[in-house]
Amino acid sequence: MKKSLGPKLLGLPAPAWVVGTYGPDEKPNAMTVAWASIFCSAPPCVGLSIGQRHYTHENILARRAFTVNVGSDRYVKEIDYFGLVSGRDADKFSVTGLTPVRSEKVDAPYVAEFPLVLECVVYEEHDAGWTTYFVGEIRDVKADEDVLGENGLPELGKVRPLIYGSGVRQYHCLGDHLAPAYSIGRELETEDN
Amino acid sequence: MKKSLGPKLLGLPAPAWVVGTYGPDEKPNAMTVAWASIFCSAPPCVGLSIGQRHYTHENILARRAFTVNVGSDRYVKEIDYFGLVSGRDADKFSVTGLTPVRSEKVDAPYVAEFPLVLECVVYEEHDAGWTTYFVGEIRDVKADEDVLGENGLPELGKVRPLIYGSGVRQYHCLGDHLAPAYSIGRELETEDN
Repeated sequence: MKKSLGPKLLGLPAPAWVVGTYGPDEKPNAMTVAWASIFCSAPPCVGLSIGQRHYTHENILARRAFTVNVGSDRYVKEIDYFGLVSGRDADKFSVTGLTPVRSEKVDAPYVAEFPLVLECVVYEEHDAGWTTYFVGEIRDVKADEDVLGENGLPELGKVRPLIYGSGVRQYHCLGDHLAPAYSIGRELETEDN
Repeated sequence: MKKSLGPKLLGLPAPAWVVGTYGPDEKPNAMTVAWASIFCSAPPCVGLSIGQRHYTHENILARRAFTVNVGSDRYVKEIDYFGLVSGRDADKFSVTGLTPVRSEKVDAPYVAEFPLVLECVVYEEHDAGWTTYFVGEIRDVKADEDVLGENGLPELGKVRPLIYGSGVRQYHCLGDHLAPAYSIGRELETEDN
Protein backbone atom coordinates (compact mmCIF):
# COMPACT_ATOMS: atom_id res chain seq x y z
CA MET A 1 0.00 0.00 0.00
CA LYS A 2 1.55 3.24 -1.15
CA LYS A 3 1.29 6.47 0.81
CA SER A 4 0.00 9.58 -0.98
CA LEU A 5 2.37 12.52 -0.50
CA GLY A 6 0.51 15.12 -2.58
CA PRO A 7 1.76 16.99 -5.67
CA LYS A 8 5.40 17.40 -4.63
CA LEU A 9 8.59 17.81 -6.71
CA LEU A 10 10.09 14.43 -5.92
CA GLY A 11 11.80 13.33 -9.12
CA LEU A 12 14.72 11.07 -8.17
CA PRO A 13 17.54 10.95 -9.14
CA ALA A 14 18.66 14.35 -10.43
CA PRO A 15 22.01 15.61 -11.66
CA ALA A 16 23.90 18.44 -9.97
CA TRP A 17 25.14 20.24 -13.08
CA VAL A 18 27.10 23.45 -12.83
CA VAL A 19 26.12 26.13 -15.35
CA GLY A 20 28.95 28.44 -16.41
CA THR A 21 28.21 31.98 -17.69
CA TYR A 22 29.85 35.37 -18.02
CA GLY A 23 28.44 38.39 -16.19
CA PRO A 24 28.19 41.87 -17.77
CA ASP A 25 31.72 42.67 -16.58
CA GLU A 26 33.17 39.42 -18.02
CA LYS A 27 33.18 37.92 -14.54
CA PRO A 28 32.93 34.13 -14.86
CA ASN A 29 30.15 32.63 -12.79
CA ALA A 30 28.94 29.14 -11.90
CA MET A 31 25.54 28.01 -10.61
CA THR A 32 24.32 24.53 -9.75
CA VAL A 33 21.07 23.20 -11.28
CA ALA A 34 19.20 19.95 -10.78
CA TRP A 35 16.17 20.52 -13.01
CA ALA A 36 18.04 19.54 -16.13
CA SER A 37 18.42 16.74 -18.66
CA ILE A 38 18.94 16.00 -22.32
CA PHE A 39 16.09 17.66 -24.26
CA CYS A 40 16.33 16.35 -27.84
CA SER A 41 18.79 14.94 -30.34
CA ALA A 42 18.16 16.94 -33.54
CA PRO A 43 19.92 19.24 -32.92
CA PRO A 44 21.60 17.79 -29.81
CA CYS A 45 20.23 19.84 -26.91
CA VAL A 46 20.05 19.93 -23.15
CA GLY A 47 17.30 21.71 -21.23
CA LEU A 48 17.49 23.37 -17.85
CA SER A 49 15.14 25.37 -15.67
CA ILE A 50 16.59 28.47 -14.02
CA GLY A 51 14.89 30.91 -11.64
CA GLN A 52 14.24 34.24 -13.32
CA ARG A 53 15.69 36.23 -10.42
CA HIS A 54 19.08 34.53 -10.69
CA TYR A 55 22.28 36.16 -11.91
CA THR A 56 22.81 33.19 -14.24
CA HIS A 57 19.38 33.82 -15.84
CA GLU A 58 20.40 37.40 -16.60
CA ASN A 59 23.76 36.23 -17.96
CA ILE A 60 22.23 33.60 -20.27
CA LEU A 61 19.75 36.14 -21.68
CA ALA A 62 22.59 38.58 -22.37
CA ARG A 63 25.14 36.19 -23.91
CA ARG A 64 22.81 33.49 -25.29
CA ALA A 65 25.34 30.91 -24.18
CA PHE A 66 26.31 28.72 -21.22
CA THR A 67 28.33 25.63 -20.34
CA VAL A 68 27.13 22.56 -18.45
CA ASN A 69 29.90 21.27 -16.20
CA VAL A 70 29.67 17.77 -14.76
CA GLY A 71 31.75 17.61 -11.59
CA SER A 72 32.96 14.43 -9.97
CA ASP A 73 31.93 13.65 -6.39
CA ARG A 74 35.23 14.92 -4.95
CA TYR A 75 33.90 18.41 -5.68
CA VAL A 76 30.71 18.00 -3.64
CA LYS A 77 31.54 20.99 -1.45
CA GLU A 78 32.26 23.27 -4.43
CA ILE A 79 29.16 22.10 -6.32
CA ASP A 80 26.98 22.77 -3.28
CA TYR A 81 28.53 26.21 -2.80
CA PHE A 82 27.79 27.12 -6.44
CA GLY A 83 24.10 26.53 -5.66
CA LEU A 84 24.07 28.39 -2.35
CA VAL A 85 25.43 31.81 -3.18
CA SER A 86 24.62 34.37 -5.89
CA GLY A 87 27.25 35.55 -8.33
CA ARG A 88 25.97 39.06 -7.59
CA ASP A 89 27.42 38.78 -4.09
CA ALA A 90 30.53 36.66 -4.56
CA ASP A 91 33.27 35.68 -6.97
CA LYS A 92 32.47 31.97 -6.79
CA PHE A 93 35.50 30.81 -8.77
CA SER A 94 37.77 32.73 -6.42
CA VAL A 95 36.11 31.35 -3.27
CA THR A 96 36.24 27.73 -4.48
CA GLY A 97 39.68 28.03 -6.01
CA LEU A 98 38.41 26.42 -9.21
CA THR A 99 39.61 27.66 -12.59
CA PRO A 100 37.39 29.33 -15.22
CA VAL A 101 38.47 28.71 -18.82
CA ARG A 102 37.00 30.53 -21.82
CA SER A 103 35.11 28.05 -24.03
CA GLU A 104 36.36 27.56 -27.53
CA LYS A 105 32.94 27.36 -29.18
CA VAL A 106 30.58 29.51 -27.09
CA ASP A 107 30.66 32.75 -25.10
CA ALA A 108 30.82 31.17 -21.64
CA PRO A 109 33.45 29.82 -19.24
CA TYR A 110 33.87 26.22 -18.13
CA VAL A 111 35.31 24.69 -14.96
CA ALA A 112 38.79 23.36 -15.79
CA GLU A 113 38.85 20.84 -12.93
CA PHE A 114 35.57 19.12 -13.88
CA PRO A 115 35.97 16.10 -16.18
CA LEU A 116 33.07 16.73 -18.58
CA VAL A 117 31.84 19.97 -20.17
CA LEU A 118 29.04 20.72 -22.66
CA GLU A 119 29.39 24.02 -24.54
CA CYS A 120 25.91 25.33 -25.42
CA VAL A 121 24.16 28.21 -27.16
CA VAL A 122 20.53 29.06 -26.43
CA TYR A 123 18.34 27.30 -28.99
CA GLU A 124 14.96 28.21 -27.51
CA GLU A 125 13.43 29.22 -24.21
CA HIS A 126 10.12 28.47 -22.53
CA ASP A 127 8.49 30.42 -19.76
CA ALA A 128 7.89 28.13 -16.78
CA GLY A 129 6.34 30.14 -13.98
CA TRP A 130 9.08 31.78 -11.95
CA THR A 131 11.71 29.89 -13.93
CA THR A 132 12.72 29.87 -17.58
CA TYR A 133 13.42 26.56 -19.28
CA PHE A 134 16.43 27.14 -21.51
CA VAL A 135 17.06 24.69 -24.33
CA GLY A 136 20.75 24.79 -25.18
CA GLU A 137 22.19 23.38 -28.37
CA ILE A 138 25.38 21.46 -27.63
CA ARG A 139 28.11 22.89 -29.87
CA ASP A 140 30.88 20.75 -28.39
CA VAL A 141 31.58 18.31 -25.58
CA LYS A 142 34.97 18.37 -23.91
CA ALA A 143 36.24 15.68 -21.57
CA ASP A 144 39.40 14.78 -19.72
CA GLU A 145 41.19 11.92 -21.47
CA ASP A 146 41.22 9.81 -18.32
CA VAL A 147 37.40 9.57 -18.14
CA LEU A 148 37.06 8.14 -21.65
CA GLY A 149 36.31 4.46 -22.15
CA GLU A 150 37.33 2.10 -24.93
CA ASN A 151 34.77 3.58 -27.33
CA GLY A 152 36.11 7.08 -26.75
CA LEU A 153 33.06 8.22 -24.75
CA PRO A 154 32.99 9.38 -21.12
CA GLU A 155 32.22 6.49 -18.78
CA LEU A 156 29.88 7.01 -15.85
CA GLY A 157 32.23 5.16 -13.51
CA LYS A 158 35.18 7.35 -14.49
CA VAL A 159 33.38 10.71 -14.46
CA ARG A 160 31.77 9.79 -11.10
CA PRO A 161 29.06 12.51 -11.32
CA LEU A 162 27.34 13.62 -8.14
CA ILE A 163 23.79 12.26 -7.70
CA TYR A 164 21.21 14.60 -6.17
CA GLY A 165 17.97 13.85 -4.37
CA SER A 166 15.38 16.61 -4.51
CA GLY A 167 13.02 17.01 -1.58
CA VAL A 168 15.38 15.40 0.91
CA ARG A 169 18.27 17.49 -0.46
CA GLN A 170 20.92 14.78 -0.33
CA TYR A 171 24.04 14.16 -2.38
CA HIS A 172 25.17 10.62 -3.06
CA CYS A 173 28.12 9.31 -5.01
CA LEU A 174 27.75 6.89 -7.88
CA GLY A 175 27.69 3.18 -7.07
CA ASP A 176 28.91 0.13 -8.95
CA HIS A 177 28.30 -0.69 -12.58
CA LEU A 178 25.27 -2.99 -12.74
CA ALA A 179 24.65 -3.87 -16.37
CA PRO A 180 24.90 -2.64 -19.95
CA ALA A 181 21.74 -0.88 -21.19
CA TYR A 182 19.80 -2.00 -24.28
CA SER A 183 21.00 -5.49 -23.53
CA ILE A 184 20.27 -7.06 -20.13
CA GLY A 185 16.49 -6.72 -20.60
CA ARG A 186 16.64 -9.17 -23.51
CA GLU A 187 17.07 -11.94 -20.96
CA LEU A 188 13.42 -11.54 -20.00
CA GLU A 189 12.30 -12.43 -23.51
CA THR A 190 13.84 -15.88 -23.32
CA GLU A 191 12.87 -16.71 -19.75
CA ASP A 192 9.68 -18.61 -19.00
CA ASN A 193 6.98 -16.17 -17.95
CA MET B 1 44.02 19.41 -21.62
CA LYS B 2 40.49 18.39 -22.50
CA LYS B 3 39.65 16.42 -25.60
CA SER B 4 36.96 17.75 -27.95
CA LEU B 5 34.32 15.09 -28.70
CA GLY B 6 32.02 17.15 -30.92
CA PRO B 7 28.32 17.98 -30.33
CA LYS B 8 27.26 14.70 -28.72
CA LEU B 9 24.44 13.91 -26.28
CA LEU B 10 26.60 13.18 -23.27
CA GLY B 11 24.66 14.52 -20.29
CA LEU B 12 25.63 12.46 -17.23
CA PRO B 13 23.99 11.25 -15.05
CA ALA B 14 20.45 10.55 -16.27
CA PRO B 15 17.50 8.83 -14.61
CA ALA B 16 15.90 5.68 -16.00
CA TRP B 17 12.27 6.57 -15.39
CA VAL B 18 9.47 4.26 -16.48
CA VAL B 19 6.47 6.02 -18.04
CA GLY B 20 3.13 4.28 -17.51
CA THR B 21 0.25 4.79 -19.98
CA TYR B 22 -2.89 3.09 -21.21
CA GLY B 23 -3.22 2.01 -24.84
CA PRO B 24 -6.44 2.41 -26.85
CA ASP B 25 -7.63 -0.99 -25.63
CA GLU B 26 -6.92 -0.16 -21.96
CA LYS B 27 -3.76 -2.22 -22.14
CA PRO B 28 -1.30 -0.90 -19.55
CA ASN B 29 2.11 -0.08 -20.97
CA ALA B 30 5.49 0.97 -19.61
CA MET B 31 8.40 2.65 -21.41
CA THR B 32 11.77 3.75 -20.07
CA VAL B 33 12.99 7.31 -20.62
CA ALA B 34 16.24 9.03 -19.69
CA TRP B 35 15.69 12.47 -21.21
CA ALA B 36 13.65 13.64 -18.23
CA SER B 37 13.80 15.85 -15.15
CA ILE B 38 11.81 18.23 -13.01
CA PHE B 39 10.61 21.10 -15.24
CA CYS B 40 9.16 23.74 -12.91
CA SER B 41 7.57 24.18 -9.51
CA ALA B 42 4.49 26.34 -10.16
CA PRO B 43 2.63 24.13 -10.87
CA PRO B 44 4.88 21.21 -9.91
CA CYS B 45 5.84 19.62 -13.23
CA VAL B 46 8.19 17.08 -14.74
CA GLY B 47 9.29 17.16 -18.37
CA LEU B 48 10.18 14.25 -20.62
CA SER B 49 11.16 13.84 -24.26
CA ILE B 50 9.51 10.93 -26.11
CA GLY B 51 10.03 9.82 -29.70
CA GLN B 52 6.99 10.61 -31.84
CA ARG B 53 6.89 7.12 -33.35
CA HIS B 54 6.52 5.45 -29.96
CA TYR B 55 3.39 3.73 -28.66
CA THR B 56 3.74 5.74 -25.43
CA HIS B 57 3.68 9.00 -27.44
CA GLU B 58 0.36 7.97 -29.02
CA ASN B 59 -1.02 6.93 -25.62
CA ILE B 60 -0.09 10.21 -23.93
CA LEU B 61 -1.69 12.24 -26.73
CA ALA B 62 -4.90 10.20 -26.42
CA ARG B 63 -5.25 10.15 -22.62
CA ARG B 64 -3.34 13.35 -21.72
CA ALA B 65 -1.93 11.51 -18.71
CA PHE B 66 1.00 9.35 -17.63
CA THR B 67 2.83 8.14 -14.56
CA VAL B 68 6.55 8.39 -13.82
CA ASN B 69 7.72 5.27 -12.02
CA VAL B 70 11.08 5.28 -10.23
CA GLY B 71 12.33 1.72 -9.96
CA SER B 72 15.02 0.57 -7.57
CA ASP B 73 18.17 -1.04 -8.94
CA ARG B 74 16.93 -4.57 -8.27
CA TYR B 75 14.64 -4.05 -11.28
CA VAL B 76 17.45 -3.19 -13.70
CA LYS B 77 16.46 -6.03 -16.05
CA GLU B 78 12.80 -5.01 -16.13
CA ILE B 79 13.63 -1.32 -16.57
CA ASP B 80 15.94 -2.12 -19.47
CA TYR B 81 13.31 -4.35 -21.07
CA PHE B 82 10.71 -1.55 -20.87
CA GLY B 83 13.05 0.53 -23.03
CA LEU B 84 13.88 -2.21 -25.55
CA VAL B 85 10.51 -3.39 -26.77
CA SER B 86 7.41 -1.58 -28.10
CA GLY B 87 4.05 -1.98 -26.41
CA ARG B 88 2.66 -2.48 -29.91
CA ASP B 89 4.46 -5.82 -30.04
CA ALA B 90 4.36 -7.07 -26.48
CA ASP B 91 2.45 -6.98 -23.21
CA LYS B 92 5.37 -5.66 -21.21
CA PHE B 93 3.73 -6.04 -17.79
CA SER B 94 3.00 -9.68 -18.56
CA VAL B 95 6.56 -10.40 -19.76
CA THR B 96 8.17 -8.75 -16.73
CA GLY B 97 5.66 -10.08 -14.23
CA LEU B 98 5.25 -6.60 -12.77
CA THR B 99 1.84 -5.35 -11.69
CA PRO B 100 -0.05 -2.45 -13.29
CA VAL B 101 -2.30 -0.52 -10.90
CA ARG B 102 -4.81 2.12 -12.01
CA SER B 103 -3.77 5.54 -10.67
CA GLU B 104 -6.10 7.27 -8.32
CA LYS B 105 -5.66 10.78 -9.72
CA VAL B 106 -4.88 10.35 -13.43
CA ASP B 107 -5.86 8.11 -16.35
CA ALA B 108 -2.71 5.98 -16.39
CA PRO B 109 -1.33 2.87 -14.67
CA TYR B 110 1.61 2.71 -12.29
CA VAL B 111 4.06 -0.07 -11.46
CA ALA B 112 3.07 -1.52 -8.07
CA GLU B 113 6.53 -2.93 -7.29
CA PHE B 114 8.39 0.37 -7.81
CA PRO B 115 8.83 2.44 -4.64
CA LEU B 116 8.06 5.92 -6.02
CA VAL B 117 5.38 7.05 -8.48
CA LEU B 118 4.41 10.49 -9.86
CA GLU B 119 0.89 10.75 -11.27
CA CYS B 120 0.84 13.38 -14.04
CA VAL B 121 -1.50 15.05 -16.52
CA VAL B 122 -0.20 16.78 -19.63
CA TYR B 123 0.28 20.47 -18.86
CA GLU B 124 1.92 21.48 -22.12
CA GLU B 125 3.90 19.98 -24.96
CA HIS B 126 6.78 21.23 -27.10
CA ASP B 127 7.84 19.92 -30.46
CA ALA B 128 11.48 18.82 -30.29
CA GLY B 129 12.47 17.43 -33.67
CA TRP B 130 11.56 13.74 -33.83
CA THR B 131 10.55 13.81 -30.15
CA THR B 132 7.87 15.68 -28.21
CA TYR B 133 8.79 17.21 -24.87
CA PHE B 134 5.80 16.60 -22.61
CA VAL B 135 5.45 18.73 -19.49
CA GLY B 136 3.40 16.82 -16.95
CA GLU B 137 1.77 18.43 -13.95
CA ILE B 138 2.28 16.24 -10.90
CA ARG B 139 -1.14 15.61 -9.37
CA ASP B 140 0.09 13.23 -6.69
CA VAL B 141 3.22 11.40 -5.56
CA LYS B 142 2.88 7.94 -4.08
CA ALA B 143 5.64 6.13 -2.25
CA ASP B 144 6.16 2.94 -0.32
CA GLU B 145 6.29 3.67 3.40
CA ASP B 146 9.66 1.97 3.76
CA VAL B 147 11.45 4.48 1.49
CA LEU B 148 10.35 7.51 3.52
CA GLY B 149 12.82 9.28 5.79
CA GLU B 150 12.28 11.10 9.06
CA ASN B 151 10.80 14.14 7.30
CA GLY B 152 8.26 11.97 5.49
CA LEU B 153 9.96 12.34 2.09
CA PRO B 154 11.46 9.58 -0.06
CA GLU B 155 15.18 9.18 0.63
CA LEU B 156 17.57 8.59 -2.23
CA GLY B 157 19.35 5.81 -0.30
CA LYS B 158 16.09 3.98 0.35
CA VAL B 159 14.56 4.34 -3.12
CA ARG B 160 17.90 3.31 -4.68
CA PRO B 161 17.02 4.61 -8.18
CA LEU B 162 18.94 3.29 -11.16
CA ILE B 163 21.53 5.72 -12.59
CA TYR B 164 21.93 5.81 -16.37
CA GLY B 165 24.84 6.93 -18.50
CA SER B 166 23.92 8.09 -21.99
CA GLY B 167 26.42 7.54 -24.78
CA VAL B 168 28.12 4.62 -23.08
CA ARG B 169 24.71 3.09 -22.24
CA GLN B 170 25.57 1.90 -18.76
CA TYR B 171 23.47 1.37 -15.64
CA HIS B 172 24.98 1.97 -12.24
CA CYS B 173 23.49 1.66 -8.80
CA LEU B 174 23.47 4.51 -6.32
CA GLY B 175 26.50 4.89 -4.05
CA ASP B 176 26.90 6.14 -0.51
CA HIS B 177 25.43 9.28 0.98
CA LEU B 178 28.07 12.01 0.75
CA ALA B 179 26.65 15.16 2.26
CA PRO B 180 23.49 17.20 2.83
CA ALA B 181 22.79 19.74 0.08
CA TYR B 182 22.39 23.47 0.75
CA SER B 183 24.73 23.00 3.65
CA ILE B 184 28.19 21.53 3.09
CA GLY B 185 29.14 24.32 0.65
CA ARG B 186 28.94 26.85 3.48
CA GLU B 187 32.23 25.49 4.79
CA LEU B 188 34.00 27.18 1.88
CA GLU B 189 32.86 30.59 3.07
CA THR B 190 34.72 30.28 6.35
CA GLU B 191 37.89 28.68 5.02
CA ASP B 192 40.88 30.80 4.06
CA ASN B 193 40.90 31.33 0.33
